[in-house]
Amino acid sequence: MISNKVIEIIMKIVGDENVITSKEERLCYAYDSTPNAFLPDLVVRPGSTEEVQSIVRLANEHRFPLIPRGTGTGLSGGSLPVMGGVVMDLTRMDKILEIDEENLVAVVEAGVITYKLQEEVEARGLFYPPDPGSLKTSTIGGNVAENAGGPRAFKYGVTRDYVLGLEVVTPEGEIVSVGGKTVKSVTGYDLIRLYTGSEGTLGIITKIYLRLIPKPEAKKTMMVSFPRLDDAARSVTEIIKRGIIPVTLEIMDDRTIQCVENHKKMGLPLDVEAILIIEVDGPRLLLDGQAQLIAELCQNNGAQQVRIAETDEEREKIWAARRAVSAAVVQIKPTKISEDIAVPRMAIPEMVRRLKEIARRYQLDLVIFGHAGDGNLHPNILCDQRDHDEMQRVEKAIGELFKAAVELGGTLSGEHGIGTMKAPYLKLEIGEAGYDVMMKIKKALDPNNILNPGKIFWSENNG
Amino acid sequence: MISNKVIEIIMKIVGDENVITSKEERLCYAYDSTPNAFLPDLVVRPGSTEEVQSIVRLANEHRFPLIPRGTGTGLSGGSLPVMGGVVMDLTRMDKILEIDEENLVAVVEAGVITYKLQEEVEARGLFYPPDPGSLKTSTIGGNVAENAGGPRAFKYGVTRDYVLGLEVVTPEGEIVSVGGKTVKSVTGYDLIRLYTGSEGTLGIITKIYLRLIPKPEAKKTMMVSFPRLDDAARSVTEIIKRGIIPVTLEIMDDRTIQCVENHKKMGLPLDVEAILIIEVDGPRLLLDGQAQLIAELCQNNGAQQVRIAETDEEREKIWAARRAVSAAVVQIKPTKISEDIAVPRMAIPEMVRRLKEIARRYQLDLVIFGHAGDGNLHPNILCDQRDHDEMQRVEKAIGELFKAAVELGGTLSGEHGIGTMKAPYLKLEIGEAGYDVMMKIKKALDPNNILNPGKIFWSENNG
Repeated sequence: MISNKVIEIIMKIVGDENVITSKEERLCYAYDSTPNAFLPDLVVRPGSTEEVQSIVRLANEHRFPLIPRGTGTGLSGGSLPVMGGVVMDLTRMDKILEIDEENLVAVVEAGVITYKLQEEVEARGLFYPPDPGSLKTSTIGGNVAENAGGPRAFKYGVTRDYVLGLEVVTPEGEIVSVGGKTVKSVTGYDLIRLYTGSEGTLGIITKIYLRLIPKPEAKKTMMVSFPRLDDAARSVTEIIKRGIIPVTLEIMDDRTIQCVENHKKMGLPLDVEAILIIEVDGPRLLLDGQAQLIAELCQNNGAQQVRIAETDEEREKIWAARRAVSAAVVQIKPTKISEDIAVPRMAIPEMVRRLKEIARRYQLDLVIFGHAGDGNLHPNILCDQRDHDEMQRVEKAIGELFKAAVELGGTLSGEHGIGTMKAPYLKLEIGEAGYDVMMKIKKALDPNNILNPGKIFWSENNG
Repeated sequence: MISNKVIEIIMKIVGDENVITSKEERLCYAYDSTPNAFLPDLVVRPGSTEEVQSIVRLANEHRFPLIPRGTGTGLSGGSLPVMGGVVMDLTRMDKILEIDEENLVAVVEAGVITYKLQEEVEARGLFYPPDPGSLKTSTIGGNVAENAGGPRAFKYGVTRDYVLGLEVVTPEGEIVSVGGKTVKSVTGYDLIRLYTGSEGTLGIITKIYLRLIPKPEAKKTMMVSFPRLDDAARSVTEIIKRGIIPVTLEIMDDRTIQCVENHKKMGLPLDVEAILIIEVDGPRLLLDGQAQLIAELCQNNGAQQVRIAETDEEREKIWAARRAVSAAVVQIKPTKISEDIAVPRMAIPEMVRRLKEIARRYQLDLVIFGHAGDGNLHPNILCDQRDHDEMQRVEKAIGELFKAAVELGGTLSGEHGIGTMKAPYLKLEIGEAGYDVMMKIKKALDPNNILNPGKIFWSENNG
């Protein structure tokens, strides 16, 4: 609990209107995009780095947890106040400070909505590639804190690959500035990448320098269906080996296709094991040839049908099928547990087989889709949170699917982070020694365990 | 000093033949590619991760410094035993463990020579892009420890961008494995990138998973001369803004051109302020058009002459000029102090002007060349180590050139690292708060200060 005295000091720092005390309003900050909820004791909305700093110092003085938050679109519990405390909503700090068209750098405050930045830079013929599913509502600060990915990551990389500099308030209330407009730098430890993906546990990100690139001239989209999943996976590898790096290589399994087609008649084939949505971008001169080569490679590898979009309308239709997935699957059952494993690309068929076997064994409904190019699959378990017995089976299945991913040389999380949801499984991947290194860093930088306690590292108190 | 008892234990761990005690042989390990030298007390050449681990544990028990070393090509003093102790030469661990052509991953021991790996992967139609100047002799482990760059970094990124996984022996002798064959992962703190570029101070890298890409189909090289440096810099920006990302964008200033031409008549123009060597690579279909567009952009921006290589021989001739730089400049004076600042791309002309002004003021001979695409300049001061007065002026000039780089929003080191050479200047860039964060990480992970003491962090004892 936060004392009235502390609340008064916080109000002086940010102004009364930026402190939320009522239960009704605090409830809005109890959620993210996981099925869990934890009520914060207080919500504060700072307007500047200095205000963030003052609150962090106060938190150290009075020992209350501080949970930085963007718009709460996270899928691993990163912004939930699992141990109570003060949620710090950074969305007031939403200024695009500069778009430097000469050096190809954008400078933004943490609370800028990702899509808004993308619109601004694209209007100038530039491009900020990271495209997490939440991009229309999520903030750049949250994207950096979670190192968000997205479909375009296969060609363009994840958020980490675009962060050139950061301003961060440390857990003890110092302001650290690392990097800036220089694209290359090796001055001491790579703090930029240590903070990126640290899920608000090592510092509060307040300002971000992002690398921009020129906007690709054109794109070409195609949908390919495969009676056999293995053929889809082999096609992906052959495309890459021929030197073509598509911007997206989305995969949907048979159950996902069924859900989408049940939800909205789109004419998707129901007799195939997988659909790939492949998009290439770059110089117009190359795209027809690349699309043709991809079509041939897929056909030689057992594709049933190849549809190349020749118009914007046809392109739109292909992507509509992919976009319909989320809405379609929640029609089946009310709760959706979104997982996020990644495996070496060639292990996708084996991983899908294991996932289906696990689902069968625990009698669970499972859809699988994701980013085939980087082996990043999103197995979604469709269930009902009110069904206690089913939820226990879900929990066991999740444990097994993580184990399977790690056994195949993969990872617990391709792009969603650890948060609270995967904290119990972290050691499975990084071992005692890796866990110990991470824990030592956390303890060294946040000795009072102020920032986002209960995340990444698992404890009985995680909630 | 290392006691005889400890030497005996080390001999038992690695075998007598892999321990070097004689002064004559130890002298070979006293140097790297800086002008400095420090004699190690002992040199050990382990053959496995387990041997590395045993020696690290021994070092903690008996408190002696341990300095990991590849082939000693570093340019910032990273592998020098500035506080004595045991140099650990990792070149016996030189096996390419696997080249996985399906998942496009190479797995190597730390001591593999970079060029050897490149030959092996290119023979399979694949590509490992990082190309530090030392690549024919330097090791992958050293490249990772220093996060080495190279001319191709502008298009393809630095070593960091290719490290998918690491096996590391921690400063206290645990073995940590992070990452692997998965291209996307966000499981806890980004230890891969924390170790990459940590200059042997946070762990000894023993095994590395590297991302490979398909080998580009073709390349096209051109040399462009500019009477005015500003025009060269503006041309670089215009090329990039038109969506062309050349694989290299090397720049040589007037004094560099003079040195090369004096050394070896190559027909370089002596009446220009800068030469750019521009190479594009990728699908053959694109390259002629790109080269043509680059030529036009340069001509519209004040280029004097554009030479496009139409044959391999012509290409070779262009690169010979760039490769001649090192040999040419040491003809002028015996000592070469190689610096490595980076600035925002558009600040290159201003940086060059400031560098020339500093050199003039301290009466020093200075050549400037580097990678214009990422603003990474290598100002080389030509001097004579035996001339005490000159060396004092060199030292002052270096302090000023770092200050100028940071003032222009740049960095002390684009690709060489901090080591001992830049340790006194680190705070200039990252501030007290950033320095403090780095120091806390070092102390938390290496409480006995065993690994590579005296690097990155400056102390009076640095030597």
